[in-house]
Amino acid sequence: MTNQIITLTSDFGIGSPYVAQMKGAAYSVNPAAVLVDITHQIPPQDIRSGAIVLAEVTSCFPDGTVHVGVVDPGVGTERRIVVAKIAGHFFVAPDNGLLGLLAEQHDSIRVVTATVDRFWRSPVSATFHGRDIMAPIAAHLTMGVDIRQFGPEQPDGALCGVELPKPRTTSDEIQGEILNADSFGNLITNIRQCDLPTQPRRQDFVIAVKNRTIRGLVQTYGQRQPGDLVALLGSTSRLEISVVNGSAEHELGIGPGTPVRVTWQ
Amino acid sequence: MTNQIITLTSDFGIGSPYVAQMKGAAYSVNPAAVLVDITHQIPPQDIRSGAIVLAEVTSCFPDGTVHVGVVDPGVGTERRIVVAKIAGHFFVAPDNGLLGLLAEQHDSIRVVTATVDRFWRSPVSATFHGRDIMAPIAAHLTMGVDIRQFGPEQPDGALCGVELPKPRTTSDEIQGEILNADSFGNLITNIRQCDLPTQPRRQDFVIAVKNRTIRGLVQTYGQRQPGDLVALLGSTSRLEISVVNGSAEHELGIGPGTPVRVTWQ
Amino acid sequence: MTNQIITLTSDFGIGSPYVAQMKGAAYSVNPAAVLVDITHQIPPQDIRSGAIVLAEVTSCFPDGTVHVGVVDPGVGTERRIVVAKIAGHFFVAPDNGLLGLLAEQHDSIRVVTATVDRFWRSPVSATFHGRDIMAPIAAHLTMGVDIRQFGPEQPDGALCGVELPKPRTTSDEIQGEILNADSFGNLITNIRQCDLPTQPRRQDFVIAVKNRTIRGLVQTYGQRQPGDLVALLGSTSRLEISVVNGSAEHELGIGPGTPVRVTWQ
Repeated sequence: MTNQIITLTSDFGIGSPYVAQMKGAAYSVNPAAVLVDITHQIPPQDIRSGAIVLAEVTSCFPDGTVHVGVVDPGVGTERRIVVAKIAGHFFVAPDNGLLGLLAEQHDSIRVVTATVDRFWRSPVSATFHGRDIMAPIAAHLTMGVDIRQFGPEQPDGALCGVELPKPRTTSDEIQGEILNADSFGNLITNIRQCDLPTQPRRQDFVIAVKNRTIRGLVQTYGQRQPGDLVALLGSTSRLEISVVNGSAEHELGIGPGTPVRVTWQ
Repeated sequence: MTNQIITLTSDFGIGSPYVAQMKGAAYSVNPAAVLVDITHQIPPQDIRSGAIVLAEVTSCFPDGTVHVGVVDPGVGTERRIVVAKIAGHFFVAPDNGLLGLLAEQHDSIRVVTATVDRFWRSPVSATFHGRDIMAPIAAHLTMGVDIRQFGPEQPDGALCGVELPKPRTTSDEIQGEILNADSFGNLITNIRQCDLPTQPRRQDFVIAVKNRTIRGLVQTYGQRQPGDLVALLGSTSRLEISVVNGSAEHELGIGPGTPVRVTWQ
Repeated sequence: MTNQIITLTSDFGIGSPYVAQMKGAAYSVNPAAVLVDITHQIPPQDIRSGAIVLAEVTSCFPDGTVHVGVVDPGVGTERRIVVAKIAGHFFVAPDNGLLGLLAEQHDSIRVVTATVDRFWRSPVSATFHGRDIMAPIAAHLTMGVDIRQFGPEQPDGALCGVELPKPRTTSDEIQGEILNADSFGNLITNIRQCDLPTQPRRQDFVIAVKNRTIRGLVQTYGQRQPGDLVALLGSTSRLEISVVNGSAEHELGIGPGTPVRVTWQ
């Protein structure tokens, strides 16, 4: 049996009936589809946050999964809806940067512009293309419809990018920043494991954030006591600032954009 | 394969384990049922909000879907639980108005009073009929049990109504009001597309709300700039007041009950 | 067909993409698994609340269901992950008390320590064993893998307990306390139906909480008027203090730990 999973990522908010409408539209095409929420709490129109979630979470799903992203689709503008195949997964999203990080990280991307309306819900509303275009396309993908059926393929496979602040690296330090906080108050930075030099030992890194200095990276929270401020490489290989069994976000009182500096001895 | 989808709408709140208990009770009857949350954030005991969601969202699902609504079931009162077939869908809910809008909008409704306890969970608690009666009935419906098996059919098919404020229409204006705000802060009114006269052009309508005047209806948000206050017919064909990429609810500081007046030139 | 349901209970918070990562990891093992959220709003690291939910909610699911609990897993400490069979259900959780109430309530428990890494996601991260170890084990359980395959069985079947305040009973009163409030503001106590003497009639109990006295237990909310303060045995057989169609939590301004005294005439 083929994988019939469709994931949904949006800025619709908790408990929004709009999410259920998208699910209904998908089930109307394929009642055997398996609908999974990734999150609907992307801040409104925050394409960058949506792009990070799509780049980091979707890889946990099996090959062939279909991922739908609806953040700032710009219905009524020139913004197109695309169907893309990236790293063995399918994506249906507006071409507004939401797939920008994925596109940056992977080669051999195939991109189709969604124009063939026989795969859409009818009639299509003027405002809710997530329900009327994207969800039905996703459901058709789970039934094995070839990506080229949805519209013309774009030869160069180019997708809109998204501006994510990149860390600046010199020979003796890395300057990055906080990207976001998770629900535990862990502060996730834009510094990835691959940005760190391989030479220094884990305990030789020094992380400076706000007025605090953290000496050494721990491997797990369990290596320190509850209440301790620690730095570690989290489950998505990004540098994180955490308080063991607490909230670094609340304790430091900082958020997205705060500088983080990494040096080594 | 027949559609085995059950949707759930309630006022249980986010993350309530009561929802999971209902799902467990449904799966105990039919492990192959497909459970879908519509929303569990109906305000407590707000039958009117529940009725609107059930009337507008359920139609997105495929024919034969079973929809369970639990808002103010009045367990321990004379309030009965009904199983209804409306427009090709099944509904299991207290007869307290929750199905009132659906009943108003559709003919040839079949209504059965749930009395046959062999379809219920055993023992039935004194307080949680959503889990002990409604969820198991819904699961039996997905297995093809005929609606008449659940109890006596009511010949006239009547269901309790719900008082939804109706717009008042004269020859030169429509007076309506805000029904609710969605998670983006769009203000949804009780004025539907079918309430508007067909003669004037879209740009000839004038919408007055609070101390603001909006000239013309846009077709999509994309026709105006971020921050603009607009009026449009939303995805459920209701007149909506919105701020492009913003929140009309916060910008105008208004909510349910605020008058909205539509005139035309 | 065997039951392929996996439930998830965690303290990850609403809309956390961590939950979706666990689901992706489970589907990667068994694309036909049925994933159900119980709640992700256990307060951070609150093992006791998690243990109550697991003990009370999981029994609503069909036999053979697999339940995953992730609260304070202590990754990087000596804390082990266990796979347990209790009362016909499977559990995958850290051995930190999360299964403590279930263990107390049931005999003939089988417990295995999860050590066999061929059932895990590869590579295993240093911080997210919910995704990398627990979810994949759960998915293998739904595919019929025998519990003994996951690691060595512990002969005595012992699991860490959890300290739940027990009511103190004398010949003429029971002293208990509030355990938690549900989303309606009903205050759930640690006094269960089986703790109450069987002799007095329902109407002869007197419940004292804060500066209020409630005479008699009602059977259902419907027996009193909206706004009335009532006491009843709720859907999980615990004594609850409620305001009909209102919030006892807000009206009394109390929460976990507040004493509740039951006497009878």
